[in-house]
Amino acid sequence: MTYTELNTPLRTIMTPGPVEVDPRVLRALSTPVLGQFDPAFTSIMNEVMEMLRKLFKTKNEWAFPVDGTSRSGIEAMLCSIIEPGDKVLVPIFGRFGHLLTEICERYGADVYTMECPWGEVFDQQAIIDEIHKVKPKITAMVHGETSTGRMQPLHKIGGYCRKNDVLLVVDAVASVAGTDIRVDEWFIDGLIAGTQKCLSVPSGMAPITYNDRIEKVIASRKKVERGISTAADKAEEIGRGRPMIKSNYLDLSMLQDYWGPRRLNHHTEATSMLYGLREGLRLVLDEGLETRFERHRLHEQALVAGLQAMGLELFGNPECKLPTVTCVKVPERTDAESVRSMMLDEFGIEIASSFGELQGKIWRIGTMGYSCRKENILFTLGALEAVLIRHHVTVAPGKALQAALDTYSTAVKETIKL
Amino acid sequence: MTYTELNTPLRTIMTPGPVEVDPRVLRALSTPVLGQFDPAFTSIMNEVMEMLRKLFKTKNEWAFPVDGTSRSGIEAMLCSIIEPGDKVLVPIFGRFGHLLTEICERYGADVYTMECPWGEVFDQQAIIDEIHKVKPKITAMVHGETSTGRMQPLHKIGGYCRKNDVLLVVDAVASVAGTDIRVDEWFIDGLIAGTQKCLSVPSGMAPITYNDRIEKVIASRKKVERGISTAADKAEEIGRGRPMIKSNYLDLSMLQDYWGPRRLNHHTEATSMLYGLREGLRLVLDEGLETRFERHRLHEQALVAGLQAMGLELFGNPECKLPTVTCVKVPERTDAESVRSMMLDEFGIEIASSFGELQGKIWRIGTMGYSCRKENILFTLGALEAVLIRHHVTVAPGKALQAALDTYSTAVKETIKL
Repeated sequence: MTYTELNTPLRTIMTPGPVEVDPRVLRALSTPVLGQFDPAFTSIMNEVMEMLRKLFKTKNEWAFPVDGTSRSGIEAMLCSIIEPGDKVLVPIFGRFGHLLTEICERYGADVYTMECPWGEVFDQQAIIDEIHKVKPKITAMVHGETSTGRMQPLHKIGGYCRKNDVLLVVDAVASVAGTDIRVDEWFIDGLIAGTQKCLSVPSGMAPITYNDRIEKVIASRKKVERGISTAADKAEEIGRGRPMIKSNYLDLSMLQDYWGPRRLNHHTEATSMLYGLREGLRLVLDEGLETRFERHRLHEQALVAGLQAMGLELFGNPECKLPTVTCVKVPERTDAESVRSMMLDEFGIEIASSFGELQGKIWRIGTMGYSCRKENILFTLGALEAVLIRHHVTVAPGKALQAALDTYSTAVKETIKL
Repeated sequence: MTYTELNTPLRTIMTPGPVEVDPRVLRALSTPVLGQFDPAFTSIMNEVMEMLRKLFKTKNEWAFPVDGTSRSGIEAMLCSIIEPGDKVLVPIFGRFGHLLTEICERYGADVYTMECPWGEVFDQQAIIDEIHKVKPKITAMVHGETSTGRMQPLHKIGGYCRKNDVLLVVDAVASVAGTDIRVDEWFIDGLIAGTQKCLSVPSGMAPITYNDRIEKVIASRKKVERGISTAADKAEEIGRGRPMIKSNYLDLSMLQDYWGPRRLNHHTEATSMLYGLREGLRLVLDEGLETRFERHRLHEQALVAGLQAMGLELFGNPECKLPTVTCVKVPERTDAESVRSMMLDEFGIEIASSFGELQGKIWRIGTMGYSCRKENILFTLGALEAVLIRHHVTVAPGKALQAALDTYSTAVKETIKL
């Protein structure tokens, strides 16, 4: 049996990731590879670090991608700082809070959780009070919770953690590059992003950053791999006497020696993905962070206006809505999956379901990165209206696109006024 | 500051990986992405599994890539089957044996090692005797040791392990797709490959396979992630009462549920890398495994003939030479790194150094995948001769290319005779 060449349909991807990739990023992926220690390649590694610092608004020395999907970055950060028995507080407001809990538990942490209803976020003071009570070594939490479409304010929590010597680790996979994140100003010690969401780079890398407070913990557990470690390395390791980081692949002390000036061989950097990440970052910085966030906000507003004009109800507290994900309640007596399938089969548009208790109850529509553009919003609204009519849902026909177009023309008028 | 578009030099990459990528694979990488649960995408996932089974010569149900570089696959395999206190035997004949040891130790195994001099491999009976003595749960070892360019025969060890209920886990990163590997016939229970070597796909994925013996161990520790697990899942987990797999990202019980019919969300599959892997596998199967191995052997012979004609000495026992890596002794009083730099700077050719005790003592030249072709061999030999003369090394000038050309023309004559 022989296989045909790769032949894929072209979709309009309106999920909260993976989203459509900018054609310029796709093109960068097809650049011939370089060896991992070729100076031409290590200079690209350094450039990517520099670009990530700008994206994260940080002066941290360490900002680089982990070679794996987003959760590999989350796990690298947590497993490198958690020692068995460490207290970790995880405030949970959706599925990915549960993921943080689970990772912490696997690495032997003494995990404390607090939960709020899905569709809400926490009052920052409530978390601060809990930190005061629990006195954890680490507070780990999600910034943009993609499963519920909510965004947790962080700066007060960060300020309190910094003053009280608690490490704040933040999963910003669904928010980075789509809405503002200020690592230094918000006192975030460790932050994890993803590539396949607002960065519009294919899935497969997890850009992270961490400061000297986290570096200190990592340094105290630092290890150089057997087979390449020197006598001096070995002597230092014995001197430390701290529990080894459980994972080799996700050991930040090793990743740091690979990304840092020592350039110690660890893995073989994922060359083509790094090319894609560099191009994605270049496009983000070229667009300008504030302009990019504004663009995300505009298309979100047009989408929301359209959905509401159609007569659909949004899920969750609007005050803490994540601008890159819009959650829509599935109308009563409507088969959520049948609607999603018809969107895909007839229109080639993908929208998402959700997880756990929200599965079948809401649809999630992303406004992320390259997918987040006018024609996609308009196409999605028009298609959804048609599919819902086909599913005998009462909608206000023709209103959605008018409302979205109104949003766009109002925005144009405001820009002209400025 | 603005960044320029990606602009990389074109190299001749003759290291043992990452190696040059077939232009058709590079092109596949730039295919627009699909959503991870799009039926058009899951059917590509299934195809990749089928192709991997053919590459590995196995009937195993489970054959899929881990989303990370090669060592992520090694760690996924080991951490999913090692429970604290498990006895693991690791025969070491180079750097990557040490890596296996280190990973096993991090996950709490009771590790037994045996070593042979670098440049040699073990007599299979010696390993069998050690297994008989230690009675480990797992024997973990390297097939093609890229650091020393040696290849360990495995079939007798596999047969003994199968009869004695020992799991045999094999790191075949440097050998898969370049030389014959027979997972089922050699009784290998779990095998790990890489993409950036003989498969000629960029680094970033680790194709693995494992059989029902390993699946049974994994199933006994199976977990469904919080936030998406059902009541039935939770009840089953409690019933098992076995130690949790430490890593979430590398937990094969979860990866299996994502690659299997249940399609449970875990990570977001690295779309573009999977496109590249599919194309790489398609090209391998299209060339034909035996033809491909023969091609690797031919270019290795031409390279070796050229190096020896030049007057250089090869490192290591020729009887167990890995056909995809050729190790050359650095001539006395020659600065190994200066030679490598001049190869790169003047000719754009990259050859490799080695690790640990062999650093500065040998060069390693890969004959892998797309890099393994006539013009690359000839260019490398010609360049190396010139660079060595420039470094005042006594070589037999003009001989290397003649010897390589002779190898090729003899091969052509033999093919015509057949």
